Amino acid sequence: MATQKIIKCRGESEEKVVDRVTEEIPFTIYVNEREIATLLASPRDLEDLAIGFLITAGLIKTNDDSIDVTIDDTKWRAHVTMKGDVDTDLLEKRMYTSGCGRGILFYNTTDLMYRNKGRSKLELEKKKIFELMREFQSSSIEFKETGGVHSAALASGDRIITLREDIGRHNAIDKIVGYAYCEKIDLANTVILTSGRVSSEVVLKIQKTPISGIISRSAPTDQAIRHAEAAGITLIGFVRGERMNIYYEKGRDKR
Amino acid sequence: MATQKIIKCRGESEEKVVDRVTEEIPFTIYVNEREIATLLASPRDLEDLAIGFLITAGLIKTNDDSIDVTIDDTKWRAHVTMKGDVDTDLLEKRMYTSGCGRGILFYNTTDLMYRNKGRSKLELEKKKIFELMREFQSSSIEFKETGGVHSAALASGDRIITLREDIGRHNAIDKIVGYAYCEKIDLANTVILTSGRVSSEVVLKIQKTPISGIISRSAPTDQAIRHAEAAGITLIGFVRGERMNIYYEKGRDKR
Repeated sequence: MATQKIIKCRGESEEKVVDRVTEEIPFTIYVNEREIATLLASPRDLEDLAIGFLITAGLIKTNDDSIDVTIDDTKWRAHVTMKGDVDTDLLEKRMYTSGCGRGILFYNTTDLMYRNKGRSKLELEKKKIFELMREFQSSSIEFKETGGVHSAALASGDRIITLREDIGRHNAIDKIVGYAYCEKIDLANTVILTSGRVSSEVVLKIQKTPISGIISRSAPTDQAIRHAEAAGITLIGFVRGERMNIYYEKGRDKR
Repeated sequence: MATQKIIKCRGESEEKVVDRVTEEIPFTIYVNEREIATLLASPRDLEDLAIGFLITAGLIKTNDDSIDVTIDDTKWRAHVTMKGDVDTDLLEKRMYTSGCGRGILFYNTTDLMYRNKGRSKLELEKKKIFELMREFQSSSIEFKETGGVHSAALASGDRIITLREDIGRHNAIDKIVGYAYCEKIDLANTVILTSGRVSSEVVLKIQKTPISGIISRSAPTDQAIRHAEAAGITLIGFVRGERMNIYYEKGRDKR
């Protein structure tokens, strides 16, 4: 967190104070010395972010063990080395369609990797989901201080394994995926908890991993629901107190 | 808004209902038949979005009157024609650095266009800001129905001129800028109201326009504050009830 002189106003009165604000850095990822992408991110857990981004972008596989990462935190760069090279066609196509800094729309055959068939069914009781989300929401430290970050957590059936925060909701998820890769955590019976809204992009990221469900405090879009159904990823939203909406649950018919 | 069969849970009880969810579409922008970018967006005000995106990306100027837009809403495409062509170097550089679908970091000389010197100072009393934000927050229709969108509004000294909603907070702002272009609204003494957090990317977008301030319900990042100071754009955050934080106000010293 950085500090910042600000003017705090209450009605007409003013007070000059030093407040905490969330930090933002440009973080550039190189793979085998080739520049891949620059993310605007929070300056923590950068190794997790680099790896997680490459996995959820479909550029490396979760079972690839030839990856090595060095972080240069003076220039905010990750230097990733791997055997072979990233799929150049995918890279060019992806960059072309996502030039706006917002959507990633490109599909390729690796998107089929963890499709419906192979993915575990989420086995969590409602009571457990309410408990996990309560714990998740009370755990975010920087949000309480600055209000400026999103958080994501990885949970198994009965506990939160780890939590990450970032100014970008996608980055927070990538940091979780990267952490799981580095710690060799089996993702097959885990879920992602997120503070943010769930767009198709979030589901397409999770689809690149064996994670079995997405549980959010917020709303999904219609396309996110379609993608979750197609990939067999359980999607639960608006978890607040003892309420929640099940948008898609693997193996269950809503009709 | 789309409708969706969902399972609503309260504690252990379940109810199958049809609920409203926010729609998401892939929207591809072509300029002179060249594909520029695909945005994930809400399917409304697409002409505004196409124009606004091109302006805030620095690809067209707010005073360029040679622009023509046709929307194909069967394929979700915008066909933009203009005299001359977009800056190809800028396009390639931008795409390269923002391949992640998140950050746009590229600067060029057009970023200096509306720097500090030429920009109007925000002239709004505190009371007016509180009033505008109250009106803004009560005006968002789709958010109330689906919880799935961000909103942005354009305001003059005394009223809200227009409001736009989108699944992307950047898109909502682009739609405002595009609307102002189409309606030939002088942006010199206007401000943007936004429901979303303010990152450097938001400030860099506004910097491409003569808009004099950004007023948000949420938090800015440290880099957003730096960019606002450099560009002479007033930046106010955490406007809630009768409280707000002034992070930078043109012509005012915080020391």
